Amino acid sequence: MKKFINDPKQLVPELLEGYTLAFPRHVKLYGSNTVVRATPKAGGKVRLITIGGSGHEPGLSGFVGRGMLDASVAGEIFAAPGAVKCIEALRDACAGGQSALLIVLNHAGDVLSANIAMQEVERERLDVKMVLTEEDISNPIGDRRGLVGCVAVYKVAGAAAEEGAPLEKCCEVAQRMADNMRTLAVAVRTATHPSTGLPIFDLEDDEMEIGMGQHGESGTGRMQLKTADETTEIMLERLIADLGVNAGEELLVMLNGAGATTLMELYLVFRCVTRVLQAKEIKLVRSAIGEFITTQEQAGFQMTVARMDRELIELWDAPADTPFFKML
Amino acid sequence: MKKFINDPKQLVPELLEGYTLAFPRHVKLYGSNTVVRATPKAGGKVRLITIGGSGHEPGLSGFVGRGMLDASVAGEIFAAPGAVKCIEALRDACAGGQSALLIVLNHAGDVLSANIAMQEVERERLDVKMVLTEEDISNPIGDRRGLVGCVAVYKVAGAAAEEGAPLEKCCEVAQRMADNMRTLAVAVRTATHPSTGLPIFDLEDDEMEIGMGQHGESGTGRMQLKTADETTEIMLERLIADLGVNAGEELLVMLNGAGATTLMELYLVFRCVTRVLQAKEIKLVRSAIGEFITTQEQAGFQMTVARMDRELIELWDAPADTPFFKML
Repeated sequence: MKKFINDPKQLVPELLEGYTLAFPRHVKLYGSNTVVRATPKAGGKVRLITIGGSGHEPGLSGFVGRGMLDASVAGEIFAAPGAVKCIEALRDACAGGQSALLIVLNHAGDVLSANIAMQEVERERLDVKMVLTEEDISNPIGDRRGLVGCVAVYKVAGAAAEEGAPLEKCCEVAQRMADNMRTLAVAVRTATHPSTGLPIFDLEDDEMEIGMGQHGESGTGRMQLKTADETTEIMLERLIADLGVNAGEELLVMLNGAGATTLMELYLVFRCVTRVLQAKEIKLVRSAIGEFITTQEQAGFQMTVARMDRELIELWDAPADTPFFKML
Repeated sequence: MKKFINDPKQLVPELLEGYTLAFPRHVKLYGSNTVVRATPKAGGKVRLITIGGSGHEPGLSGFVGRGMLDASVAGEIFAAPGAVKCIEALRDACAGGQSALLIVLNHAGDVLSANIAMQEVERERLDVKMVLTEEDISNPIGDRRGLVGCVAVYKVAGAAAEEGAPLEKCCEVAQRMADNMRTLAVAVRTATHPSTGLPIFDLEDDEMEIGMGQHGESGTGRMQLKTADETTEIMLERLIADLGVNAGEELLVMLNGAGATTLMELYLVFRCVTRVLQAKEIKLVRSAIGEFITTQEQAGFQMTVARMDRELIELWDAPADTPFFKML
C-alpha cells in the first residue's frame, strides 16, 4: 500500500490529532474522536453536529467552524462512530442549555448510531432534532444514500444558527435544503482501503460506473469510459429529471472530486454543466468545486444540483470560516 | 487514460473557461489564456503577475483574487506560456500607469519567457520588477526549482500590494519570503500526462523518491517506501539544515498534496512535523495544508518550511479572497 501512514490501528487518532494541530485557530479535539470549534459559538445559539466515518478527508470534520458545524463525531475508517460518542457530543453541545441539530448522512451504521443517540437525549429531555440527508438518486427513494450534499445543508443551517435562529427554524432550513438537492456519483478507478490494504472495488481499464456510493457500493451499472462532456450530460440529465427542475428555476451545482480526479477535469465538467443548463434556460446561481468528501485516492466525482430560493441563497452566501469551506 | 477530458488539444482553453465560469465573482479570462481578477484592484496599487504551465490545478490561476495575484498567464500542460502572452499581461497590468511585480518559478521555459518579456517591457519603460522562486533543495543552489513556496510569496507580496505598498517594497517582501523558504518533494506513484496519455515517470511498487520535481524531474535517489513519520523526519531534517534554522526561530510549514495523496496522510505528516519542531524548540507559527500545486493524480507531497518575521506573519495573516486560498 503506497500511503504515508504509521500503524494502521492508530490511523484515526493520529489523523484527528494532526488535523486539529494544523488548524488550531479553528478546531480542537473533544475526547478522542470528536472535533469541535476552538472557540465555542455564543451561548443560546443552536449547535450543529454531524457524524460519519473517517477516510473521507476533509469531510466531515473539515467543516467545523464559524457559520457551519459546531462538532463532528468521527468513526473509524469508513465506519460509523457508535451511539456512545454521539450521545457524549450531543450532551456537550447542550451543556449550557442550548438546542442542537444533528445532521446525518443516510448510511446504515450512522443512522443506527444516530437513532440510539436521539432516543437517549430525548429521555434526558435535551432539545435535539435530527435531519437525514438522502440525496443519491442511484437508489430508489427511501433507500438513498447521503453524499456530498450534506455540505450544503451544513452551510445553510449553520448560517441560520449563527444568526440566532431557533432550533425549529434551523431544522426547517436544513430539511428544505435536503429535500431540494440530488446527487449522482461516477467512479473510474478504485482506491486502497488504508486499514486493510485491499482495493475498495474493481473496475476494468476502460470502464466507469455511474451511481457508485461513497464506499464502492454498486451503482446503476458499468459502461465504457466517456468524455467529460458525455459523462456530464448523462449525469446532469438524470439529476434534473429526478429533481423536476423547470426552465427559469435557480440551481446550486456542486462538483466533489473523489480524491484522484483532478480539478482540471472538474473544470471541464463544470463548463459542460453551464452549457446544458443554459440550453434548458435553467439559472446557475451558485457553485462549489473542489474536494469536500473524498474516498481516499479513488478517481471519480459527485455532482449535486439543488433548487435554491432567495432565503437559501442568502444563507449560502453568509460568512463561513472553517478549515475547508470559507465564504467571505 | 482514465480522465474525464474531451479533445486533448482543447484541454487548456476548456479548463480555463470552466474555471472562470465556476468562480465568476473572483476571476475572468483576459485573452485566451490569462486569468485576471473579475474586479481589478484600485488604480495605483502594484499588480502581481505570475506565469506557469497548466495541469497543476488549482495552481497557479487558483490564487488570483483580492490579497494575492492580479493575473496568471497559463501555458499548455506542463509548458511555459511563452513571452508574447507574458508581455501582453504585463502591458495590461501597467495600462493605467501602475507598477507590476512578476513572480516566476524557476523552470527553464518559464524563466526564458519571463526574461524576454522583462526586456521588452523595460524597453517600453513600464515599471516592472521580477522575483524568481528557487527553493527546491534537491538541487544545488543556482539550479533549484520553484515549487509550492510561490504561494507564500504570492500571499505576502499580495498583501503588501493590497495595502498600497510601492513596487520597491512589494519586491523586497517577495524576495525576503523567497530567500527564507525551502521545499522538498516526495513522490510515490506517477500520474498520466493528460495530453500524451503516457506516465510521467516510473517507480517500483515499493519505492518512493525524495526530491522529485513538479514534472517528474529526478530527485536525490529512490528508496524503500517509509512510514509517514520516517518520511517526515528525513524531509524535515534536510529542510531545517539547509535553511539553517535555530531553536527559538519561527517557521511557516506548508504541506502540498501532489494530487492523489490524501489529506489523511498529510495530517499524519503534519502531526510528526509538530513533534520534530517541538523537540528542537523551533516555533511553528503558521501552517497551510491542502492541494495548492498538483501534478495530475500523482501521489506524493511537497513540504515547505519558511523562516518568518513579524512583518511576514502580518502579511500572511492579512485578508485574502481567491478561489483556492482564503484568509479571514
